[in-house]
Amino acid sequence: MSDVSIIGIGKTDVGEHWNTSVRHLSWYAIEAALDDAATTDVDALYVGNMLAGRLSQQDHLGALVADFAGLRGVEAVTVEAADASGGAAMRQAVLAVKSGLVRTAMVVGVEKVTDETGSAVIAELATGLDADYELIHGLTAAGAAALLMRRYMHDYGVQLDDFAAFSVNAHGNGADNPEAMFRNRLAAERFATAPVVAEPVSLFDMAPLADGAAAVIVTDAERAMDMAPKPVQVVASTLATDTIALHDRREVLWLAAAAQSAEKAMSMAGIAPHDVDVFELHDAYTILAALSLEACGFAPRGQGWHLARDGEIGRQGSIPISTFGGLKARGNPLGATGVYQIVEVAQQLRGEAGACQVPGAQIGMAQNLGMAGGTAVTHILRADFSGNLEFSGK
Amino acid sequence: MSDVSIIGIGKTDVGEHWNTSVRHLSWYAIEAALDDAATTDVDALYVGNMLAGRLSQQDHLGALVADFAGLRGVEAVTVEAADASGGAAMRQAVLAVKSGLVRTAMVVGVEKVTDETGSAVIAELATGLDADYELIHGLTAAGAAALLMRRYMHDYGVQLDDFAAFSVNAHGNGADNPEAMFRNRLAAERFATAPVVAEPVSLFDMAPLADGAAAVIVTDAERAMDMAPKPVQVVASTLATDTIALHDRREVLWLAAAAQSAEKAMSMAGIAPHDVDVFELHDAYTILAALSLEACGFAPRGQGWHLARDGEIGRQGSIPISTFGGLKARGNPLGATGVYQIVEVAQQLRGEAGACQVPGAQIGMAQNLGMAGGTAVTHILRADFSGNLEFSGK
Repeated sequence: MSDVSIIGIGKTDVGEHWNTSVRHLSWYAIEAALDDAATTDVDALYVGNMLAGRLSQQDHLGALVADFAGLRGVEAVTVEAADASGGAAMRQAVLAVKSGLVRTAMVVGVEKVTDETGSAVIAELATGLDADYELIHGLTAAGAAALLMRRYMHDYGVQLDDFAAFSVNAHGNGADNPEAMFRNRLAAERFATAPVVAEPVSLFDMAPLADGAAAVIVTDAERAMDMAPKPVQVVASTLATDTIALHDRREVLWLAAAAQSAEKAMSMAGIAPHDVDVFELHDAYTILAALSLEACGFAPRGQGWHLARDGEIGRQGSIPISTFGGLKARGNPLGATGVYQIVEVAQQLRGEAGACQVPGAQIGMAQNLGMAGGTAVTHILRADFSGNLEFSGK
Repeated sequence: MSDVSIIGIGKTDVGEHWNTSVRHLSWYAIEAALDDAATTDVDALYVGNMLAGRLSQQDHLGALVADFAGLRGVEAVTVEAADASGGAAMRQAVLAVKSGLVRTAMVVGVEKVTDETGSAVIAELATGLDADYELIHGLTAAGAAALLMRRYMHDYGVQLDDFAAFSVNAHGNGADNPEAMFRNRLAAERFATAPVVAEPVSLFDMAPLADGAAAVIVTDAERAMDMAPKPVQVVASTLATDTIALHDRREVLWLAAAAQSAEKAMSMAGIAPHDVDVFELHDAYTILAALSLEACGFAPRGQGWHLARDGEIGRQGSIPISTFGGLKARGNPLGATGVYQIVEVAQQLRGEAGACQVPGAQIGMAQNLGMAGGTAVTHILRADFSGNLEFSGK
């Protein structure tokens, strides 16, 4: 059984691509990844997407995108797990290469939200919640985050302002990322006065929905050594799920899928949290950033926000997060987000993150959540350009 | 690298399940498969579904179904490839088990169409076509089949009545299948007088859209020998794609993805068409049955319908198809269809097909198409209860 490495990465700007369709966005990212890998040889395509069927009346993206991107005929399917679709597609590509039945796999995450109005997109996004117990009562993704945030503030005696440092960090990093949607720095004192979306969640707590596509090419590690100057090893890949409906979770402030997925990934990679040099987490809401840090073992329960307050999430901190702006400032192209995370971690490990570079990053982790943690996908990547690392089974 | 076998199968009746939701349908099929395998030990769940996000406002089915079916926490995602979603989900399960990272994988195909009106379902199904070049001009799935059928009749000098034997065979077999949606036998002379849907496609050319769920459990072949009295080996698994838009295909009457997928599968399994004892093909339209037989090497171009006319597709014929009624009479629950095909072939090979049994069936093939062949997934199964068969790589 072979190990898996990343040999190519590509992405489009994140933002409002009014004149670009879902197939064009996908193609741009795929072309960039093929160029980066200096290959045209791909055996399978995994498309991470959540809403194209509704927002662009286009399902069947596997066949469509493969054909449009010049890969006519290859094995191609769509993988969906709400806004964890991108991470889930990456996971399928890793499984495919490890099976030995697929030699080189392309992952493309894509979302095109500007084909519809904002309110339509918010309603469609809510189909990632539990339709019978949450959506039907009018809950939205922001509403679910608001329930978690209010409960967190109550249980742990935390104030709204205590979350500000997450957004300040994300926007600070986004300002250095030319592909980010929002490149404005954010003053901490502006945080508490932001317009409220779903109390207590404000505009500065939540990531903007956006258009974008990102792509990654993986192949077995041995072959990768011959193909790419800096192949990035995938040393762990895990996916776990949890009850979607918040009322039915055993502990509402514990992201069980995130914890299970991260613990298993760290065990596969043979590392502990303090070994992680860069962590692209799913900060669709600041509360999810805090809860993710706790679930993944970087902070005790109720103290994830301390890492933000104390500057530990910055590039020079102990656990840099959202290094290209995160979902908050780079933007959240739903089904593409998980693939952006992988691309950004790979850039960090290749030392090609430009102004966003975390000095000396060797081990990076990406965690993509579906809604408020119904799905969690964790990948651990390693810059081990000598290629001696083992990826050791389950 | 281990081989893969089926250790459990389950399915619901196909039909109009007005009072049963998408999560319940999935659960019923999963429970039946777990009972059949006499296990509760599943590591990953692959959900094949096309339209739940729109028809039932429920995306994120992986996490939702896993939880509802008592598999809380397991790896779970949705796989979509239009009405080839079920076959594509089966393919992911095979890759997962072969990767060595997943020990036992559950596949469930599910579709629930009766949450919406028929016209809404037809419009949503059309998102499997090319949105920018076909759907926007009003093309539907039936319309695409009509274009193919008319061209076939023109090019090969075939009459409408020449397709009748496909439907007569399907309904004859469906009458013997207690889970079929339509159990009425069809008189050949009624065929040409059926109400027209999209000329020349009539009501007797096309399969009914339906609710249903089917499930399959796979694990490595060696372990399967210890777990199941009659494990069915998956000796080939392939997926290929083609241009979706008919106008852009190189040869409009040649299902290139079906041909590529079948040829590769037969090569993997080390068999030729004449070795196949039972073939569950994608007869969403009679024209697709004819074209599939040709693409898969069972008939020369333009002569797929001869096999129907000559009775070769019946249980006693050289290539029995639609043995449980096919899409035409068993019903077409879109994203579930590909999993029904696998379950039915497994029933044949286990000798448990009841009145639908093909005597002495040892090798079976299932081919699931996305729309008019934009995606094709082929699986070859073998009843080799001594467990000595090799599944040999790519």
